[in-house]
Amino acid sequence: MPNIGGTIRVAVTQSYDVIVGSNLLEQVSDFVSAQEITILADEHTQTYAQRLADAVQRSSRTPLLITVPAGERSKTLDTWGQVIQQLSDAKLSRQAALIAVGGGVVGDLGGFVAASYLRGIRLYHVPTTVLSMVDSSVGGKTGVNLPTGKNLVGAFWQPTAVFADVDVLATLPAKEFLSGTAELFKAGLIRDYELAATLLADWSQSAAPSIIADYLLRGIAVKAEIVAEDTFERGTRAFLNLGHTLAHALEGASGHAISHGVAVAYGLVFAAYLGKARGMFDYTDLAIQFLQWVGESIELPPFSQLVPYIERDKKAGPGYITYVLLEAAGQPVLVHDVTESEQRRAYASLQEVAL
Amino acid sequence: MPNIGGTIRVAVTQSYDVIVGSNLLEQVSDFVSAQEITILADEHTQTYAQRLADAVQRSSRTPLLITVPAGERSKTLDTWGQVIQQLSDAKLSRQAALIAVGGGVVGDLGGFVAASYLRGIRLYHVPTTVLSMVDSSVGGKTGVNLPTGKNLVGAFWQPTAVFADVDVLATLPAKEFLSGTAELFKAGLIRDYELAATLLADWSQSAAPSIIADYLLRGIAVKAEIVAEDTFERGTRAFLNLGHTLAHALEGASGHAISHGVAVAYGLVFAAYLGKARGMFDYTDLAIQFLQWVGESIELPPFSQLVPYIERDKKAGPGYITYVLLEAAGQPVLVHDVTESEQRRAYASLQEVAL
Repeated sequence: MPNIGGTIRVAVTQSYDVIVGSNLLEQVSDFVSAQEITILADEHTQTYAQRLADAVQRSSRTPLLITVPAGERSKTLDTWGQVIQQLSDAKLSRQAALIAVGGGVVGDLGGFVAASYLRGIRLYHVPTTVLSMVDSSVGGKTGVNLPTGKNLVGAFWQPTAVFADVDVLATLPAKEFLSGTAELFKAGLIRDYELAATLLADWSQSAAPSIIADYLLRGIAVKAEIVAEDTFERGTRAFLNLGHTLAHALEGASGHAISHGVAVAYGLVFAAYLGKARGMFDYTDLAIQFLQWVGESIELPPFSQLVPYIERDKKAGPGYITYVLLEAAGQPVLVHDVTESEQRRAYASLQEVAL
Repeated sequence: MPNIGGTIRVAVTQSYDVIVGSNLLEQVSDFVSAQEITILADEHTQTYAQRLADAVQRSSRTPLLITVPAGERSKTLDTWGQVIQQLSDAKLSRQAALIAVGGGVVGDLGGFVAASYLRGIRLYHVPTTVLSMVDSSVGGKTGVNLPTGKNLVGAFWQPTAVFADVDVLATLPAKEFLSGTAELFKAGLIRDYELAATLLADWSQSAAPSIIADYLLRGIAVKAEIVAEDTFERGTRAFLNLGHTLAHALEGASGHAISHGVAVAYGLVFAAYLGKARGMFDYTDLAIQFLQWVGESIELPPFSQLVPYIERDKKAGPGYITYVLLEAAGQPVLVHDVTESEQRRAYASLQEVAL
């Protein structure tokens, strides 16, 4: 159906398709069979949401359009409760569908709304950023933040379908395009090393839509494979967290002022140094090259400020922390015995190459 | 393992055991392997929770014991958020387990906490009422109420095991024992009619524990079968809602002053009348007999006050409502074309026999 791109099947308990291509937005309405439709968007994506709503309206259904403020500040229990209340006030039934049009915040928030309203209604993702296309819209993770940390409340709820329209990436702010690429780069590092190795040569916001779609499909294929292996993150799904232990700590310590993609770009360099110091696979040069390509300078706080966040990481257990490291190109492992001094040394190395 | 009673396997995506017997409470700690344990209870069940906590402590683990006020007023987003925050403040990891010790409110609230904290931790139910043993602790439904209705927010999250200790029923307030039996009676009506037909002759709070355990096991077997057939309530699981359309409306209109079991007892008589008037299976006598056995008088509001609640029922769709009716003993069907005048006539019949 998409004239460029293709379709990837994600096999979990319920399987669903992630459709990548151009000119998809107008076709979403035809795919969603529900009579009752809610479209969730933020200020940045409401024009897309409106186009989608108009298409729904032309099919003789009246969508409920809900817009939340853009950014992480909407990923809260308060906003989630308000959206749930709007669905309840509109008397939406369990047959309703929710279409989340936006980046990670709208997807995670809308996903948790869909997971929990009447104990679950159908969910469609229309991701509008690189990051949400290759990562957050695939795999069924939904949730909001607590003051004590990111994604501390949520549920696993798989979408019925995901529509990734590459056309919307052309107008994405350049910063967001660059930083969002971090999850695509990471997907390559953990399972398709050639993707990571060639990405920077081929990939740019002005690249041909077919090239962009091809890379997205490869990144999504990595995510889909890992989600199929470990839907509820009891094991190998944690590999997707390469670079994320430090990334989440940086985000937390900055009060979420740093974007997730930028934080991951720094976290990947940190993880590369941790592994190199252990004599594991050395991809520090590639990770640094990627960080420079992202080109976003942040203030790196003293490591001691990050320790409480690292200890509270979701991969941590009682008395231990967990890092994802690479033992070979495309081969991640979970490591539970990284010491604080190892972390401090890797962090010092990161500080030296930081922008 | 239990010296009376037995074990029923619930087969869903993950399967788990519901263990019914006496003297189980002290053994729960041995079953739960997690190092980090939270026990959730309410004021009425905190002595049981404390016994369980003491057993956990003897196994060199320090449980986090959380007590919420008793009753429906704790089944709110506020309380849920507070409990989640306590888990987060205690830095509990994804390896932690939550044990919910109590009736339906503690089970539903604790279940939603376990479903959503870090996107899901292990959950054990220790139901302490008839109603929660035969109904709410089995099947993975969790959730809280909104001002606009019951259970409007929640998730499906299956427990790792359920421990139903019949000893705790002996000290249950008589009213609660009687009204809680409504779900057991209903389980019989929809799939084990002999259970419903013989229940009142054999079942009482002073009956031998082995008799109580046998009836509980039969009721749980019905629930387990239906949950295995339709885990996410897309079809036959709605049969468990026999009597519940009116019951939820009565509860809502009373501001949740009426207990769920009592509401169901009235709802079952109403459903019996609806079916009888359509020439379907006539079990009005048995349902009235059961209502009298429960013996709880409530104020039945004018039907018009119930209509908004009935329209908002979770089984309703756009422009239609759904009733579960019996076409034969133990054989429920979903009916979508019940008119308002049919409902009014059945309600008038209910008012005539009401206590």
